[in-house]
Amino acid sequence: MRLLDLQTNGLAIGLASRLDSAKAINITKDLSNFLLEKKIKAFPESRIANILGLPGKSLHEMTADQVPAIACVGGDGTILRVAQKLPFKNPPAILGVNVGAVGFLAEFDVNTRESFNHLVSANLIEERCIRLSCHVDAQDHFPPALNEILVITSRPSKALSITVSVDKQVFSTGYVDGVIVSTPTGSTAYSLSAGGALVAPELEAVQLVPVSPFVRTGFKPLLLPSSSTIEIELLRPKLNAIVAIDGQNEYTINSAVTKRITIRKSPSGISFLRTQASKTSFFSRLNKKLLPGAKFPLPKHDQPEE
Amino acid sequence: MRLLDLQTNGLAIGLASRLDSAKAINITKDLSNFLLEKKIKAFPESRIANILGLPGKSLHEMTADQVPAIACVGGDGTILRVAQKLPFKNPPAILGVNVGAVGFLAEFDVNTRESFNHLVSANLIEERCIRLSCHVDAQDHFPPALNEILVITSRPSKALSITVSVDKQVFSTGYVDGVIVSTPTGSTAYSLSAGGALVAPELEAVQLVPVSPFVRTGFKPLLLPSSSTIEIELLRPKLNAIVAIDGQNEYTINSAVTKRITIRKSPSGISFLRTQASKTSFFSRLNKKLLPGAKFPLPKHDQPEE
Amino acid sequence: MRLLDLQTNGLAIGLASRLDSAKAINITKDLSNFLLEKKIKAFPESRIANILGLPGKSLHEMTADQVPAIACVGGDGTILRVAQKLPFKNPPAILGVNVGAVGFLAEFDVNTRESFNHLVSANLIEERCIRLSCHVDAQDHFPPALNEILVITSRPSKALSITVSVDKQVFSTGYVDGVIVSTPTGSTAYSLSAGGALVAPELEAVQLVPVSPFVRTGFKPLLLPSSSTIEIELLRPKLNAIVAIDGQNEYTINSAVTKRITIRKSPSGISFLRTQASKTSFFSRLNKKLLPGAKFPLPKHDQPEE
Amino acid sequence: MRLLDLQTNGLAIGLASRLDSAKAINITKDLSNFLLEKKIKAFPESRIANILGLPGKSLHEMTADQVPAIACVGGDGTILRVAQKLPFKNPPAILGVNVGAVGFLAEFDVNTRESFNHLVSANLIEERCIRLSCHVDAQDHFPPALNEILVITSRPSKALSITVSVDKQVFSTGYVDGVIVSTPTGSTAYSLSAGGALVAPELEAVQLVPVSPFVRTGFKPLLLPSSSTIEIELLRPKLNAIVAIDGQNEYTINSAVTKRITIRKSPSGISFLRTQASKTSFFSRLNKKLLPGAKFPLPKHDQPEE
Repeated sequence: MRLLDLQTNGLAIGLASRLDSAKAINITKDLSNFLLEKKIKAFPESRIANILGLPGKSLHEMTADQVPAIACVGGDGTILRVAQKLPFKNPPAILGVNVGAVGFLAEFDVNTRESFNHLVSANLIEERCIRLSCHVDAQDHFPPALNEILVITSRPSKALSITVSVDKQVFSTGYVDGVIVSTPTGSTAYSLSAGGALVAPELEAVQLVPVSPFVRTGFKPLLLPSSSTIEIELLRPKLNAIVAIDGQNEYTINSAVTKRITIRKSPSGISFLRTQASKTSFFSRLNKKLLPGAKFPLPKHDQPEE
Repeated sequence: MRLLDLQTNGLAIGLASRLDSAKAINITKDLSNFLLEKKIKAFPESRIANILGLPGKSLHEMTADQVPAIACVGGDGTILRVAQKLPFKNPPAILGVNVGAVGFLAEFDVNTRESFNHLVSANLIEERCIRLSCHVDAQDHFPPALNEILVITSRPSKALSITVSVDKQVFSTGYVDGVIVSTPTGSTAYSLSAGGALVAPELEAVQLVPVSPFVRTGFKPLLLPSSSTIEIELLRPKLNAIVAIDGQNEYTINSAVTKRITIRKSPSGISFLRTQASKTSFFSRLNKKLLPGAKFPLPKHDQPEE
Repeated sequence: MRLLDLQTNGLAIGLASRLDSAKAINITKDLSNFLLEKKIKAFPESRIANILGLPGKSLHEMTADQVPAIACVGGDGTILRVAQKLPFKNPPAILGVNVGAVGFLAEFDVNTRESFNHLVSANLIEERCIRLSCHVDAQDHFPPALNEILVITSRPSKALSITVSVDKQVFSTGYVDGVIVSTPTGSTAYSLSAGGALVAPELEAVQLVPVSPFVRTGFKPLLLPSSSTIEIELLRPKLNAIVAIDGQNEYTINSAVTKRITIRKSPSGISFLRTQASKTSFFSRLNKKLLPGAKFPLPKHDQPEE
Repeated sequence: MRLLDLQTNGLAIGLASRLDSAKAINITKDLSNFLLEKKIKAFPESRIANILGLPGKSLHEMTADQVPAIACVGGDGTILRVAQKLPFKNPPAILGVNVGAVGFLAEFDVNTRESFNHLVSANLIEERCIRLSCHVDAQDHFPPALNEILVITSRPSKALSITVSVDKQVFSTGYVDGVIVSTPTGSTAYSLSAGGALVAPELEAVQLVPVSPFVRTGFKPLLLPSSSTIEIELLRPKLNAIVAIDGQNEYTINSAVTKRITIRKSPSGISFLRTQASKTSFFSRLNKKLLPGAKFPLPKHDQPEE
């Protein structure tokens, strides 16, 4: 995909921005003006539209047939929020514009005219990412998760007692604070903090990571095919659980009523636009943003003595 | 200490029991009857007194000069609850009577006449344990912790941003779900689930264990002299923290108002009565109750091939 | 596959046994006699042939067109040794007969006539497993690995300095004792001891696990598509590395000469015969043999107090 | 201690240097010349003496009554090597002069006249560190360890089977690659890479850390009073162990002959000279050199979205 081509095809680019950062708002303004000059139609998300002096659109109205790409200016939080609100069917691809240093999903550090020019002319590669859906008993009212679904005790001082099954096979039973089910995209986020493994973006897998498991459970991070159905059975009827989606939304699960939380791959995935192949982008961001190892190799005089 | 000697000295033994376990209540009854026969005065905690048909006493009235020992029938939860409610000054020593398999603090598996006889005649050894106190700004309304003090995010989907200092020296700053400060006694409990090290009971130490730290913080479990003052500074004014004491009580900390949580050794310790020296008891319980390694060494035919 | 059908098709079953266990030898004898009665041709591995009084065959002569299955009586060590020596092209499927408690790969606990009868009549399912190949510079003299390839310092007191790349992208550089590259099959073996994640057998993945990495490297376990090419570059010319295949063979790598070790999926896989689908078998063995959590859920009276 | 005062008391300062670093040698030369000007007597270690044009002394001749301090120019390897060779009784205090970035023990970054002036005039604080001794059966031929004693398999492809006891109490039995016993000083070194906890320098403790333990052993890092006696029993007579002291020396232990390795606090400690109190120095070096967290707190615009 080349953004410049949107112009000739009568298509638009969406614009979303972090609102509590003046820097993000300014970049969004600059980008909006830049697109105007380039005659690329831009649809800002309603909440930023006023600031840009443009008519806004709500995120769930932006489908890929009209808005093939949406620029998200901010950090990972902005991307996760936007991804959740885009239409379930046919959502636009996300172009993460990074403001600050933490953003791992947000790839682009663009803030000058030159970098905008570069961006809209580049041949962008679509990286398709799976998402996860969460069902509680017969209901299904949770948004899909791009990073992870967290099932955790509602009272930090009490551990959940759960049985985790995979495709109806019991994996483990015991006391844990919670369980994270993460996508490859989410393997660099909360899952990593809780002791999970990194997962390359091309691997069609989901990861199950226990949070503070009682040692005797023997609970360990587990990698599964993305086609797996994971069920978490709540065994303590007096202790409610909380389901959190991508660190954005929390839902209380009444464990006296609900016994079973089901997690599987969502029919709705999401794409990122990148200038590099998925793998290249992954390792480059890993070294630049996440792993301190990037500082190595050591200069000669720092090497350990032979 | 020998419990039989209480009789001649006009002293009493306290009795506390788990209430939601018929087995615990029955053992408490049997023990109460047994003490009566042996003419050892027994003071049941008020909430179990009716059931035993004896006049009760509240836990905070039992001081060691009159009640040098209190039998806690149940599991670790019972012991932690009782320890918190005993008088701050001069609390009786705890005799943990285990009902079930999980109890790590509760050492005694007594439920027969014979075992009661054995128990009251034995020469019991006092194991002194430190506790931790928690102060929030100028106030001090938290009970002392026998196992651990947990400072954790009030919203599981959002990480705290904190600075942890030790005796005014900054240890680490960054994003974590929470921090556990544990005693040696608590090193086999929540602290272990979160990745902390085991600590022998004789070591005068406290341990600081991060819960799901963002990898770039480099936060690791840290062992400190028990005389250390640990300060946790809350850096996100919109995200409240929760303080949980021994998994028993939770307190919400308004981080817009309170910036600093201080944890140090409490002037009030607690003792356990054991039949073995502290060290012997520790390793024996570790192997029997906590570590699955006890099943080793393998029988000859299970050994790996040479 | 049904073993009884070998008889009518003029095919044979191979027989291999652990030699340092009287129990394993006895089961192999019983199995051999049983097959004779059932008129199923059996080819024992040369080293056990004398003991069985049968003509032997070396493992590398047994190809699946004549010997579609080989029973390995012993533990995981026996299976790993046999798998390495079977022909690279068209190896028979492995039937792991467990002697002892540790064997995770060896599924069958058969030692009675009845269980033999059951085994040869059962409809066995073939579970296909990938293996890994290891290349050093231009050479390729290592057997394929069913569990893992370990690249580790030749001197336990000195750490390797390495750069690990995946498909020519640098993953991490720094000091580590070593690196494990494991298959899904090997995810329950050494890789798990070193902190790797469990990997379900159906996932087409390889895992890269650092052994004792210096904390500043930020090295973490990493899951990759099984099609990935992993390169390990040795940066300390005076410190040799050791390559170990499945804990069976060790090769010293002269790091003054060899700079680069390449690991990828081998063209030669191996199959296991199981009575259950791969997934069912995996979780059942995990709970029975590896994770102590199998003892849970706790009986009612062991549950934590509400 | 003030180095300038050595001059008036007729005492000397020792000089040791890393030899494979031109930078280290140059700093040692400059320091040597500077001391000459200041009329502070300097005794270089024999192997650097030629280069400095001064008469040399072997390290084991330097006792604190004549040489109260020795400057070690290099990194941690230099300090560990020197500490081992200093006299067992009454060794001089170590002044670690850092060349490069890795050195955690080496505190001083001095390389200019001005910094030398500052160093010799400063009021230096002595930080006393324990060391560990290792005994094999009746013998005792190992140098004391400042960082750690590592007991590890001699064949990386085979795990040791060991029983670890503390003061004659069994801690754990099972399969491990090895065991690290570390001092508080060593808690930031190999012990940390293997998953051990950080230990503040004032805590009188030793830490036992398993290296790649088989999960079913339940082996965890364990903190013990420094007065503990740790015994490691070797259970596989055909698999030798290696003992490595501070990553400097390796000794092969013939496990057919030797069954038991005993580790305890050495009667010989060592001191470091520091400009700050031990605790202040520890946390300052931790943040500057080891933990990447030092980069936090994040600038305002990098903070996660509320």
